[in-house]
Amino acid sequence: MYFHVQDFINEIAQDEPDPAAANALQEGLGGQFGEMRTMMQYLFQAMNFRGPAAKPYRDLIQGIGTEEISHVELIGTTISRLLDGSPQYQGKPTDPLDKAGAGGAIPLNIALDHSNIHHYLVGAQGALPVDAAGNPWSGSYVYNSGNLTLDLLYNLMLESTGRLQKCRIYEMTDNKTARSTISYLIVRDQAHENAYAKALESLGVDWGKLLPIPKTNAEAFPEVKELVDRGLQSKQYSFDLRGQSEAGKIFRGASPSNDGTELDASEQAPVGSPITIAPERMEEFAPGLDPELLALIQATADLELNEIENLYGPVAK
Amino acid sequence: MYFHVQDFINEIAQDEPDPAAANALQEGLGGQFGEMRTMMQYLFQAMNFRGPAAKPYRDLIQGIGTEEISHVELIGTTISRLLDGSPQYQGKPTDPLDKAGAGGAIPLNIALDHSNIHHYLVGAQGALPVDAAGNPWSGSYVYNSGNLTLDLLYNLMLESTGRLQKCRIYEMTDNKTARSTISYLIVRDQAHENAYAKALESLGVDWGKLLPIPKTNAEAFPEVKELVDRGLQSKQYSFDLRGQSEAGKIFRGASPSNDGTELDASEQAPVGSPITIAPERMEEFAPGLDPELLALIQATADLELNEIENLYGPVAK
Amino acid sequence: MYFHVQDFINEIAQDEPDPAAANALQEGLGGQFGEMRTMMQYLFQAMNFRGPAAKPYRDLIQGIGTEEISHVELIGTTISRLLDGSPQYQGKPTDPLDKAGAGGAIPLNIALDHSNIHHYLVGAQGALPVDAAGNPWSGSYVYNSGNLTLDLLYNLMLESTGRLQKCRIYEMTDNKTARSTISYLIVRDQAHENAYAKALESLGVDWGKLLPIPKTNAEAFPEVKELVDRGLQSKQYSFDLRGQSEAGKIFRGASPSNDGTELDASEQAPVGSPITIAPERMEEFAPGLDPELLALIQATADLELNEIENLYGPVAK
Amino acid sequence: MYFHVQDFINEIAQDEPDPAAANALQEGLGGQFGEMRTMMQYLFQAMNFRGPAAKPYRDLIQGIGTEEISHVELIGTTISRLLDGSPQYQGKPTDPLDKAGAGGAIPLNIALDHSNIHHYLVGAQGALPVDAAGNPWSGSYVYNSGNLTLDLLYNLMLESTGRLQKCRIYEMTDNKTARSTISYLIVRDQAHENAYAKALESLGVDWGKLLPIPKTNAEAFPEVKELVDRGLQSKQYSFDLRGQSEAGKIFRGASPSNDGTELDASEQAPVGSPITIAPERMEEFAPGLDPELLALIQATADLELNEIENLYGPVAK
Amino acid sequence: MYFHVQDFINEIAQDEPDPAAANALQEGLGGQFGEMRTMMQYLFQAMNFRGPAAKPYRDLIQGIGTEEISHVELIGTTISRLLDGSPQYQGKPTDPLDKAGAGGAIPLNIALDHSNIHHYLVGAQGALPVDAAGNPWSGSYVYNSGNLTLDLLYNLMLESTGRLQKCRIYEMTDNKTARSTISYLIVRDQAHENAYAKALESLGVDWGKLLPIPKTNAEAFPEVKELVDRGLQSKQYSFDLRGQSEAGKIFRGASPSNDGTELDASEQAPVGSPITIAPERMEEFAPGLDPELLALIQATADLELNEIENLYGPVAK
Amino acid sequence: MYFHVQDFINEIAQDEPDPAAANALQEGLGGQFGEMRTMMQYLFQAMNFRGPAAKPYRDLIQGIGTEEISHVELIGTTISRLLDGSPQYQGKPTDPLDKAGAGGAIPLNIALDHSNIHHYLVGAQGALPVDAAGNPWSGSYVYNSGNLTLDLLYNLMLESTGRLQKCRIYEMTDNKTARSTISYLIVRDQAHENAYAKALESLGVDWGKLLPIPKTNAEAFPEVKELVDRGLQSKQYSFDLRGQSEAGKIFRGASPSNDGTELDASEQAPVGSPITIAPERMEEFAPGLDPELLALIQATADLELNEIENLYGPVAK
Repeated sequence: MYFHVQDFINEIAQDEPDPAAANALQEGLGGQFGEMRTMMQYLFQAMNFRGPAAKPYRDLIQGIGTEEISHVELIGTTISRLLDGSPQYQGKPTDPLDKAGAGGAIPLNIALDHSNIHHYLVGAQGALPVDAAGNPWSGSYVYNSGNLTLDLLYNLMLESTGRLQKCRIYEMTDNKTARSTISYLIVRDQAHENAYAKALESLGVDWGKLLPIPKTNAEAFPEVKELVDRGLQSKQYSFDLRGQSEAGKIFRGASPSNDGTELDASEQAPVGSPITIAPERMEEFAPGLDPELLALIQATADLELNEIENLYGPVAK
Repeated sequence: MYFHVQDFINEIAQDEPDPAAANALQEGLGGQFGEMRTMMQYLFQAMNFRGPAAKPYRDLIQGIGTEEISHVELIGTTISRLLDGSPQYQGKPTDPLDKAGAGGAIPLNIALDHSNIHHYLVGAQGALPVDAAGNPWSGSYVYNSGNLTLDLLYNLMLESTGRLQKCRIYEMTDNKTARSTISYLIVRDQAHENAYAKALESLGVDWGKLLPIPKTNAEAFPEVKELVDRGLQSKQYSFDLRGQSEAGKIFRGASPSNDGTELDASEQAPVGSPITIAPERMEEFAPGLDPELLALIQATADLELNEIENLYGPVAK
Repeated sequence: MYFHVQDFINEIAQDEPDPAAANALQEGLGGQFGEMRTMMQYLFQAMNFRGPAAKPYRDLIQGIGTEEISHVELIGTTISRLLDGSPQYQGKPTDPLDKAGAGGAIPLNIALDHSNIHHYLVGAQGALPVDAAGNPWSGSYVYNSGNLTLDLLYNLMLESTGRLQKCRIYEMTDNKTARSTISYLIVRDQAHENAYAKALESLGVDWGKLLPIPKTNAEAFPEVKELVDRGLQSKQYSFDLRGQSEAGKIFRGASPSNDGTELDASEQAPVGSPITIAPERMEEFAPGLDPELLALIQATADLELNEIENLYGPVAK
Repeated sequence: MYFHVQDFINEIAQDEPDPAAANALQEGLGGQFGEMRTMMQYLFQAMNFRGPAAKPYRDLIQGIGTEEISHVELIGTTISRLLDGSPQYQGKPTDPLDKAGAGGAIPLNIALDHSNIHHYLVGAQGALPVDAAGNPWSGSYVYNSGNLTLDLLYNLMLESTGRLQKCRIYEMTDNKTARSTISYLIVRDQAHENAYAKALESLGVDWGKLLPIPKTNAEAFPEVKELVDRGLQSKQYSFDLRGQSEAGKIFRGASPSNDGTELDASEQAPVGSPITIAPERMEEFAPGLDPELLALIQATADLELNEIENLYGPVAK
Repeated sequence: MYFHVQDFINEIAQDEPDPAAANALQEGLGGQFGEMRTMMQYLFQAMNFRGPAAKPYRDLIQGIGTEEISHVELIGTTISRLLDGSPQYQGKPTDPLDKAGAGGAIPLNIALDHSNIHHYLVGAQGALPVDAAGNPWSGSYVYNSGNLTLDLLYNLMLESTGRLQKCRIYEMTDNKTARSTISYLIVRDQAHENAYAKALESLGVDWGKLLPIPKTNAEAFPEVKELVDRGLQSKQYSFDLRGQSEAGKIFRGASPSNDGTELDASEQAPVGSPITIAPERMEEFAPGLDPELLALIQATADLELNEIENLYGPVAK
Repeated sequence: MYFHVQDFINEIAQDEPDPAAANALQEGLGGQFGEMRTMMQYLFQAMNFRGPAAKPYRDLIQGIGTEEISHVELIGTTISRLLDGSPQYQGKPTDPLDKAGAGGAIPLNIALDHSNIHHYLVGAQGALPVDAAGNPWSGSYVYNSGNLTLDLLYNLMLESTGRLQKCRIYEMTDNKTARSTISYLIVRDQAHENAYAKALESLGVDWGKLLPIPKTNAEAFPEVKELVDRGLQSKQYSFDLRGQSEAGKIFRGASPSNDGTELDASEQAPVGSPITIAPERMEEFAPGLDPELLALIQATADLELNEIENLYGPVAK
């Protein structure tokens, strides 16, 4: 069973809208090696896990899988922010009935030259479950052979490929909003590389100098270096509410990344950053309420609130 | 940010393996109107939500979306249990090196006549992210127009279709494992119908006698009736760890289902049922460890555990 | 612009339900060489046609394309009839509220062993836009190169492949409902083969003894022979309401099928067979109305009918 | 059974080629909420319809479905016209053998920067069965649950989403060719919204102020306003050749769109606009006939025409 | 540049037709971890290879890739043989015009209960480019990150998963035709595991006891043991016509599979087994020639042969 | 069984990088009518071939299929060369540890405006198994009906469509690298058109003036003319190592292309052009080795080489 808290797992930096960067980030969300895939792959591996004696492996996978849901939330919102307001249409927030195209105006003209027109046409300047080339996410991506060694080997390769692609995305844009999330995910992917590499070490493998993959000067990327300096590549959170996770039996000892750190699984979760709600966008008919509907919402809310509070006392807000 | 607890959201009843029922349930997991889809649709709608004034709607969608992750966990595990052991191969649990096909035996012969051979060939008697006809789940299923009215209308239709399909699955099998989960989901889908219908009521719609959809004698299904008698169709949990959800501003008052109940959003989560881990299956090479690898795991665990406990004291298990 | 008449293009024979035959026929509806594909391919070729001087070719393609819409209607309904009632559930037609699964019964149990479980789970014992292996129809099937010679060559191959597959389906079942439609389409596919072969003859090709493809003893299939004896393989209707089609400039002269007939494009359309509506199926919650909703329909209809007839006179029924 | 007349359902305005606008319109043709989908969905719902007592609902769906085939024809041709001639290659119409690339010229160079290169490479400056992001249309889009209430609810949502997307496309371009078709479809989608909303009213729903969706100032779009002033959003044609449609039992009374109009189902079809044929495009090898082949066509046509007219008298042209 | 010799890479044993086994083998041909995928993945990795200094790695991948084309040929033909004649229709080989369905017979009735009806309906009792669940092979399977370490790691996982799935297929059937090919591929997949594991050893990894994956008693499968006894799991052929491959710089030394063998790359290719051609199948209209067409073939062949031999001398046969 | 030689089937001309041309060429590699498709279609037709008497047809298909593998290699490498170095990043070849993004640089920024961002993000400036619109290659493209006449007719259409699309690509770019390969494939596609047309002639068809398709002034394309002057459109190689092909019984006599040449099947293969290996690309982390890993490779190679040569004598290089 899962729970939510209204925090992002990491803070998203402010910068100008940048729809091209948004599209590149779609690979990290809905691509074959993106967060939707890691999330689903680990949730399936945890559900279908075999072997009670191997519970620490199951818990390691379950914990990383839970983290990936928060990564979906983080990168999806980052994409939305990069798209939000990019048409630079000046709607009238006091008049929720859209006037965007009145008189034959073309406030969404930008969409015709944009990387993925669906960001404006199907979604309302928001993230989509597709990759950077527009292909929808597919269940056929999920790998879960049931053979523990193979699942671990695949997961190691998966995290390394995710990290490789994010390093490439980093090299494509210097938008601060994009980079704050990409850099965080580069570092967390390395933590997950370490987790699966360490699990394979427990089965007898010695990785030598091979890790991390890719062999990058990631520490020379300023935003990445800051996070590495805080040791985020060597921590794994449990995200487990009752402390039943045994992942710490695996995620400990010297990092397989050859960086001299010790792996640490002692924290439940990182400190988050509060979630906020994006503004309305008139030119997208989003959310699409006119003054009458807005008044209805308010009236209904007031009415029912009064009734309920009369009966039961104040409602939590 | 998301958290996990090692409980199922509802208990899964015990019964014999039943791979045909397992395959029917795949529609409820990976089908176009299954739990992976509701989960992803609501997570995207929550991430891309517009309009700070409409926060109660966002919170309603976020809460249901969080619940759907637990539904994925529940129905996925139910499918795994229905498949587990169906080949009736008697492996030797004391000898982890598989002998399943030794001497030319065909312990997986059942797979050739099974609904989806991938349950034995690609997975190891476990759930897959596909529907009951074997089609992989697709990101193109996710609907998130950004127009609040349309998103709510779609969600109402989606939950009703999910409930319709589960009522049909109920009529396909009387396996108790399958039915315990299907019945629970029929009732929860109705709760979600109520949530979206109520949200549209707040925008001025009067549903008259239309709901619930389908118009079934669901209360005549014994397993469903038991849950309805407990009022589960009229509750919505927040799954919010800090109590910031305002979904209760919408989910309250008379149920749109015309059953005389009052909607109730006062609980954080239901009481769960402990998660257990499935046995190894030699004929699937799952988890695929031989005695030497097992010994390594144990040795490594003992060694590192000792070292760590020497330094930091006892590790939580 | 298109019009409809409430007639099937050919009569559908009565026989017992046969879901396996229904599934085989899905190839002829939603398969890569089925009627949805011919229909869409010809509608696109007609829309995108280039060369005013070549209007007779456009009209030939448009006319066959229009016929294919009626073929979709014919084979889709045939599939529905083959499925309809196959679970042999005896609902209570006087009580529209479904009791199908009451008391825990499993009236849809047949679906678990059926060729495509979606016929009972996603549809309500009705046709689906998929092929016989369950793959959804895809727009990537449509061929429209814009090069007239190539489009004609493809169309000849397409009709011949459609006819080949239908001859194979004929050999798979002797259900009379299935065969009445399959046999009709075998003969009409040959008419379309003749049309495209003749069009290529007008560009200089001499087909020698090659046609028809496949070289079958189709005339030895009793149901096919009856239609061939009526000359249906050598007729092409215009389905053009204003008689503007010039297809007859091509579809005339000796048949390329070497059967001694003359091609004839003089008729607008065949005589149809009245469309009827299938019964409700309680076990599918289809159409899903309860007594209250039915009463509402009737009351509303009566009320509004009266009002309108008071104003405008009797409404056509 | 279907018939065709060589008219567009609405006139297409003249303007310059505009391949970017053409690509945006592809969403309205081959997108998940485009005309191919509405057409196929309603044809399937009509074929699989259950409940003879509910014939007016079947007829309503059948009539709208028939109209959608004409919409496919309209928007497909509009896309073709927006693409036609966009490379600005000046072929020699008197010499049908293509000289387009002679001497190494690159007349199709525009394709490399175009929204969808397939418009020039796979098609010949013509419409494709894909959406604006290049995804092929899929049969998995079609929704037909067999439950009447759900099918109507889905159809209402579908038409509203189609209208929403077309309003967004309107805001992307001011090309007159594109806008004449988009504006017409915005208005017709509203008529279909009204149809399904009214059908649900007959089942007891009161929509209050919710409709139309989206809540737009569509009447402030000049091209849309002109059509609304003619009342096109409140008419539904039967497209039924024998007057057997009972759709008028539902489509009547006050419009659910709250615009003060009365719904009117008394007309069979609108007045159309004559279909014309596009010119040849040498640089695409379309239609790809050389002088010899052209001469053959003419000779064959003359010869056979003479023979046939000798035997049977003049052929209609 | 590639060449072909009319030999299978391994002999295919004779046994009865077995369409269920044929379908299971489709996973090994067109599945996500089947031979079409390994073939394409390695051909792309070889084409896109970077780093002249790393030529031995390129040559290793190129050589295995070339072998996989022969594996596609081997398993494809094995599937065809398992299907061939399964309907047990007794055609008249002396009369090539098909009489299969004459008089209304149903010789292909078996197809309705078969694992994949397309084996009889789309193909003519032959292999298809799909997996065992009927999904078409997809280019999205191909992994080629360009990062050598990751490509090698993926390839190791890929071969191990292929081997795992084939071990499972082995356990599904004891048909000798199926097993002769499956066993051969189990052993060759292990050779490829060794190749990629060894390449990673050269980058510093020590695999310990981890390999081979899966840890099976494969040597207890009689057909597999015979091939292992011949050392086929420790050989890699170059398939290079000019001896330019440097793969032997990697594929040598102790096997990473811990079986005490030395890797050997000294042979160009194994001894093959002559390819034969399958009989005609009248009930499939395959190859679909009637007596007149057959006579034409013969006459044409004789005539042209004479002419050519008059001019140039005898033609090689 | 297949063999390889380290030669391209044709030389690739040198020119500047051109990612837009690279993307257009993807249609010729991974498109529905590209080289991956012809290759797979012919390999399947050859594997599943029926009718020992028709061996010359099988051999014709097998020989062309083998050639197509070399075409995949040729066009894939051409695409890689067009992409290679297009970001114009000046890496330090003496320092294999990537510094590409150091200090926050964006050397891959070009990818955001590129036709297919995957060329830089998923691949490392290399070819992908997708078409020019980014759709992955699909097994559903492969046509193999088993009916010889239909398979030949389809193949003729397929080669002609491939040639049509390549003529269009020729008109899109004058990059010499792109054109050298496109022109070669235009001519070879015509040779294959001739092969299938001739095969159908042997079954009685007289093509008159129809061929070649498209009717182009291909001979007016300078690069194409040069190859036509060498007669490459009228040759078919066997690529058969033992001279067992009987394709020459069909591929002989007057060319169906009406160009006055005689078909010639007497050569085994063309003279190739040596394959070279592309440089490393630091900004892509390709191949991703750091100095330590490189040293390991060298040391391992030296060591093992010595050992082996001590035992067995010099190793071939």
